[in-house]
Amino acid sequence: MPKLWEKGYTLDPLIERFTVGKDYLTDMKLIKYDVIASIAHAEMLAKVGYLSSEELEKLKAALKKLSELIDSNQFSISPDEEDCHTAIENFLVREVGEIGKKIHMARSRNDQVLTALRLLYKDQLKRIEKLIQELKNQLVQFSKRFGRIKFAGFTHTRKAMPTNFRTWSMALYDALDDDLRILRLVFELIDRSPLGTGAGYGVPAKIDRRFTAERLGFKSIQKNPIHAQLSRGKYEFLLLHSLSQISFDLNRFASDIIFFSLPEIGYLSLARELCTGSSIMPQKLNPDPLELVRAYHNRIVAKQMECATITSNLITGYHRDLQLLKETVLEAFEIVEQLLLVMKLIFEKLEVNEQKCRTSLTKEVLATEKVYELVERGTPFRDAYRIVAEEFGGE
Amino acid sequence: MPKLWEKGYTLDPLIERFTVGKDYLTDMKLIKYDVIASIAHAEMLAKVGYLSSEELEKLKAALKKLSELIDSNQFSISPDEEDCHTAIENFLVREVGEIGKKIHMARSRNDQVLTALRLLYKDQLKRIEKLIQELKNQLVQFSKRFGRIKFAGFTHTRKAMPTNFRTWSMALYDALDDDLRILRLVFELIDRSPLGTGAGYGVPAKIDRRFTAERLGFKSIQKNPIHAQLSRGKYEFLLLHSLSQISFDLNRFASDIIFFSLPEIGYLSLARELCTGSSIMPQKLNPDPLELVRAYHNRIVAKQMECATITSNLITGYHRDLQLLKETVLEAFEIVEQLLLVMKLIFEKLEVNEQKCRTSLTKEVLATEKVYELVERGTPFRDAYRIVAEEFGGE
Amino acid sequence: MPKLWEKGYTLDPLIERFTVGKDYLTDMKLIKYDVIASIAHAEMLAKVGYLSSEELEKLKAALKKLSELIDSNQFSISPDEEDCHTAIENFLVREVGEIGKKIHMARSRNDQVLTALRLLYKDQLKRIEKLIQELKNQLVQFSKRFGRIKFAGFTHTRKAMPTNFRTWSMALYDALDDDLRILRLVFELIDRSPLGTGAGYGVPAKIDRRFTAERLGFKSIQKNPIHAQLSRGKYEFLLLHSLSQISFDLNRFASDIIFFSLPEIGYLSLARELCTGSSIMPQKLNPDPLELVRAYHNRIVAKQMECATITSNLITGYHRDLQLLKETVLEAFEIVEQLLLVMKLIFEKLEVNEQKCRTSLTKEVLATEKVYELVERGTPFRDAYRIVAEEFGGE
Amino acid sequence: MPKLWEKGYTLDPLIERFTVGKDYLTDMKLIKYDVIASIAHAEMLAKVGYLSSEELEKLKAALKKLSELIDSNQFSISPDEEDCHTAIENFLVREVGEIGKKIHMARSRNDQVLTALRLLYKDQLKRIEKLIQELKNQLVQFSKRFGRIKFAGFTHTRKAMPTNFRTWSMALYDALDDDLRILRLVFELIDRSPLGTGAGYGVPAKIDRRFTAERLGFKSIQKNPIHAQLSRGKYEFLLLHSLSQISFDLNRFASDIIFFSLPEIGYLSLARELCTGSSIMPQKLNPDPLELVRAYHNRIVAKQMECATITSNLITGYHRDLQLLKETVLEAFEIVEQLLLVMKLIFEKLEVNEQKCRTSLTKEVLATEKVYELVERGTPFRDAYRIVAEEFGGE
Repeated sequence: MPKLWEKGYTLDPLIERFTVGKDYLTDMKLIKYDVIASIAHAEMLAKVGYLSSEELEKLKAALKKLSELIDSNQFSISPDEEDCHTAIENFLVREVGEIGKKIHMARSRNDQVLTALRLLYKDQLKRIEKLIQELKNQLVQFSKRFGRIKFAGFTHTRKAMPTNFRTWSMALYDALDDDLRILRLVFELIDRSPLGTGAGYGVPAKIDRRFTAERLGFKSIQKNPIHAQLSRGKYEFLLLHSLSQISFDLNRFASDIIFFSLPEIGYLSLARELCTGSSIMPQKLNPDPLELVRAYHNRIVAKQMECATITSNLITGYHRDLQLLKETVLEAFEIVEQLLLVMKLIFEKLEVNEQKCRTSLTKEVLATEKVYELVERGTPFRDAYRIVAEEFGGE
Repeated sequence: MPKLWEKGYTLDPLIERFTVGKDYLTDMKLIKYDVIASIAHAEMLAKVGYLSSEELEKLKAALKKLSELIDSNQFSISPDEEDCHTAIENFLVREVGEIGKKIHMARSRNDQVLTALRLLYKDQLKRIEKLIQELKNQLVQFSKRFGRIKFAGFTHTRKAMPTNFRTWSMALYDALDDDLRILRLVFELIDRSPLGTGAGYGVPAKIDRRFTAERLGFKSIQKNPIHAQLSRGKYEFLLLHSLSQISFDLNRFASDIIFFSLPEIGYLSLARELCTGSSIMPQKLNPDPLELVRAYHNRIVAKQMECATITSNLITGYHRDLQLLKETVLEAFEIVEQLLLVMKLIFEKLEVNEQKCRTSLTKEVLATEKVYELVERGTPFRDAYRIVAEEFGGE
Repeated sequence: MPKLWEKGYTLDPLIERFTVGKDYLTDMKLIKYDVIASIAHAEMLAKVGYLSSEELEKLKAALKKLSELIDSNQFSISPDEEDCHTAIENFLVREVGEIGKKIHMARSRNDQVLTALRLLYKDQLKRIEKLIQELKNQLVQFSKRFGRIKFAGFTHTRKAMPTNFRTWSMALYDALDDDLRILRLVFELIDRSPLGTGAGYGVPAKIDRRFTAERLGFKSIQKNPIHAQLSRGKYEFLLLHSLSQISFDLNRFASDIIFFSLPEIGYLSLARELCTGSSIMPQKLNPDPLELVRAYHNRIVAKQMECATITSNLITGYHRDLQLLKETVLEAFEIVEQLLLVMKLIFEKLEVNEQKCRTSLTKEVLATEKVYELVERGTPFRDAYRIVAEEFGGE
Repeated sequence: MPKLWEKGYTLDPLIERFTVGKDYLTDMKLIKYDVIASIAHAEMLAKVGYLSSEELEKLKAALKKLSELIDSNQFSISPDEEDCHTAIENFLVREVGEIGKKIHMARSRNDQVLTALRLLYKDQLKRIEKLIQELKNQLVQFSKRFGRIKFAGFTHTRKAMPTNFRTWSMALYDALDDDLRILRLVFELIDRSPLGTGAGYGVPAKIDRRFTAERLGFKSIQKNPIHAQLSRGKYEFLLLHSLSQISFDLNRFASDIIFFSLPEIGYLSLARELCTGSSIMPQKLNPDPLELVRAYHNRIVAKQMECATITSNLITGYHRDLQLLKETVLEAFEIVEQLLLVMKLIFEKLEVNEQKCRTSLTKEVLATEKVYELVERGTPFRDAYRIVAEEFGGE
């Protein structure tokens, strides 16, 4: 099937496989947004006169048919079509003939993919926000059940001072609130329509960008076409960063739970159905899901790094390099979605061993309180500190 | 001179050198903020009764004296004092004796350094914002002088379609506006006082956190002490990211200027006083400053990465690992400040060669316009595309 | 189907999906090596007395059957089996009943996967080495055809001094030779059998590690079991680095070819069948494969980073985090294999425009030669440099 | 003072500060190698006839004088001289007038800095190798004292199976042996003289590269000048990787020591003089040096990343971007040197608590042994595993 840019020569098969890569698979996640944007684009073309109303109706009917095929898993992109943009145009030509050849007027694959990606990102960001809210709710439940229980908090992987599970679980709650603010900024920045910026240099045709922006639910348009093109890679970098802020928090709390559920510490117990075992040691109950939560954070960080280095040292204007980011970002969304679901389940099933927590509050954990008692009775702080320090000097 | 935690044993000299590292130097940038925070802390201690008003006055006088010594470069931190926190307490003990030993009541170095760092970050963020505004103004000037000149824009490092220097320079303007929005979010997140969160587990004493927060100009307090401690590393990660968004834009535009000022392209001319030469080739005028702008972006990205990996896989609660981030972030601020100044100068001196730009607009750059003309006359887009493509087929 | 560690409780389905991830798919690339290692392990068990010779024969027959099923794509790992290790044991139990339950004596999945991975790595490294040799041969061909053609080399993206295509193409040849040396070191380091190191603490049974090492073609055994376990992640880090050295070279030369084939430079021509087009601009012939070569290098670098950060800050001993590296490394091998194939094809089809090369050798490119002529006639170098520089001062 | 490329115009002061950066300081570590290489270069110039023997003697005398000034800290590079290469030539002109202007004949700063850096790297690599040997010796001592003591090893941060301190400490020994092999390969690759490759395109003069290579102790010459230039960045990437392999091991063992010296685990005791304290909690003895060892690994990894991303997507030939790597690599050497010294001291002072180790060997740690006993008595492994697992099922 022809590619959009085909013009009388055949691409080398190795190069074809190499340039297409997994795009024909990745784009199956993107195609429904591309269909939505194509409908809005067709409506705009009709509005400004490039399509008759009859042509528009035929195109819309075909696009709706395509949409249903996608929803019912009856459509796939073939590798020789490269991407969803080509697949859509080819489908339209098959369905409505000559009219299908009109859909690409006044757009480029560059603004087309930017538009479809932003629609997808917006949906994904809402989904992530919802999952964060659910995890936050779970943290409130956890805090209600166990919040009052005190235990010795750690600094430098050494017992430090008393704290409680309310403070601990609500710290994650607060960190997730930080993350929500970052996500919302990302949402605002991408909530501007790039449709109509062509390949980064606009289109030499009279179009109505505000019309498509409104139709697609964008808050405004991203006017400058070079800015729109520059934001490919730039916004992905920010987006991946915002996801890595979430995974950052989960990495730290997964580390805490692994540590606090060490039998030698014993503050927490992990439900057996959340643990896996060893093929050689029958006694083992291992916190594998938490280890994977920890590890996936590092994968998200690496994806952010990949985005930074792929875009580095390039002149502005589109380069095929940027295409790799599609797969990178979609995988990152999937991972963070899973991490949030898993951590919610972990907190739902997590148990606190009150007895172990109580016995952790040994006298050295209360040393600071003792210092402060001396201060209350008139000793300057630093002297009080040294007096109490002497008691622990033998250790 | 004694360290704050000294208690009857001597640290191994190698370990002392290793743990102190460059902190005693780095902290010279931090100490003035630590003095400001110490004054507010002392006032709070007086307010809640840990200091008499007389003691407070003496402490404040000593802290002001210290502040003046710092401003006039008459104060330095000795390596055996470790950091600015110790240096301040030691100074106070030397100046006002026993009263100096009271300053550390109800705080830990952990919340102390968090507070000083946030005050410093806030100042630096304002400085960066100001420099961005100045660069934006310069871009407006550049656009006024050269904005109307058209040239062939590139995609895939190949001539693509016509654009002009207004669109090009304003794209950077818009990207910097994105960056300002990110910076402001960072500012908002850090504009919460951590003072009073101790070593991440609060302080077992009655203190007034809102009082110090107001005194120090923080918009609110960061209540949860574990959240405050967790934000060490987390907010630095975000901060470094926000700086890397700025350097991202500058990297891309520095790459453009290097490319557009290639004699073979010739759109732009770099003033000689911005170029350096070769030690072997007398004819060379090299765009070294732009290459360094490009390279420093990658250093900022690496610093962000360093922050991510230093904090990864650690349980919550302070670890000494986090200390390395102080130097990392301060260097990043310095670099980005320089990058903004240099790029402002570059745009101030940049000249456009109108003749070269005009001749770049060869017929293939107008191929899309030709396609659209055929479309206007009734040919479906894809057919028009193929008709025009045939003309260029020989190439 | 049961997991190897199953013992009377059911894993939560979300956790099961999460912990298995894509392992059941990834492991299809690993399973044939696991079968080979299982045969050697079974032979060793028979040798030391844990299996009768009859049991061994039955196991070997079953493993060979499995091997054939794999080769003919008639075997797949089901998600609830987790990984290839479980799939193999389950297959054996189905085939030979009780005897199948004996195969896991004296091994752990930890040493089992280490062994299978090293066998796979060794094969892949040989494959990469072969592809490098093929690319080197292609470079020799290229040099034979075009090597004598001179052109102006660049520094700082500015014309510098004359060079020729022999020097240019042989520089990549030499760089690939560097890479081969690194690859060979990686090969040597991993060419030690970890089988028998169990889960990092050996196995409390009398086994013959040299026997299995020899059977599997390992040069020696990796004796220390903690070292064997520590090398998980460590050797992958080195392996990914060695691959990124290759992609480093290809990134630089892909950048060169993109730049040298710019019409404005014109040294090189890319065959049309290696270029793709634009959906909007009919005239475009874009060097997409070279841009992807460039971009994939950055992905390999990011994978190396992922490996570094996943393993960072962890205590020794296995953690589930390490499992993510399996997928990471296998993808990296696939990518580098493709890059080498693509670059070989590029060099096969690359044409040099002698005319354009000749005209690039303008007088300023020969400025250094002119300086040296003055030196030959007695002027000190620095003075000669300044005399010639003056000629170009007007520029 | 004049720069090497000065030719009648003045660099903007901001650009001068920006392009020089910290080079004038960093180069103080490099200058002695540059002097050594300059002597060899002068001797070669005399050999091939560009200097008379009298001129050579004067230059050598001046260079030796400079060398002594450097050794006695009486020489510094001024910021307006940019770098050590300029500082040397200016010194020579001051000392021996016109003859000094002849030293730069037939070389460029590009091959000059490459040469000086490789001489420095070779020295540093030898130093690192020596420090690794010392740490290995310390590990042997540690193993002699404590090696026979058994303790429960961990997987998944959970007690797993018995091991002993010989296996543990010798695992680091073996890992360091791996690192030595990598370092030696790096040494071999850089042990080729780049002097004479000019700015990447050779020098149009008759020189004797083998002569300078021998004089400077290089094993051979790096013939292809583009390969020599390409190796800037490439070899640094490998070098930084080799250093990160060392820090990788130390990161993991520092993590182990932090964990094993947790009072709740208690296998190890850290000498007090290796611990620092808290400013608020008098009881604390914190393993700060180990945390910094851990953290510095991540800094080395970030430096490696910086190197990868700075060099990415650039055409071959020198770019000023590469200059940043000088500082990066020198800092990395310093850090790794310190890490090796600190870890040696740590192992020297480390104590094992035999009692705590013994009590860690609880019955579940011996579960695998129990399984194997059942196997010895005829139960198939997987059945034996399940029988023993049942005993621990209640947990």
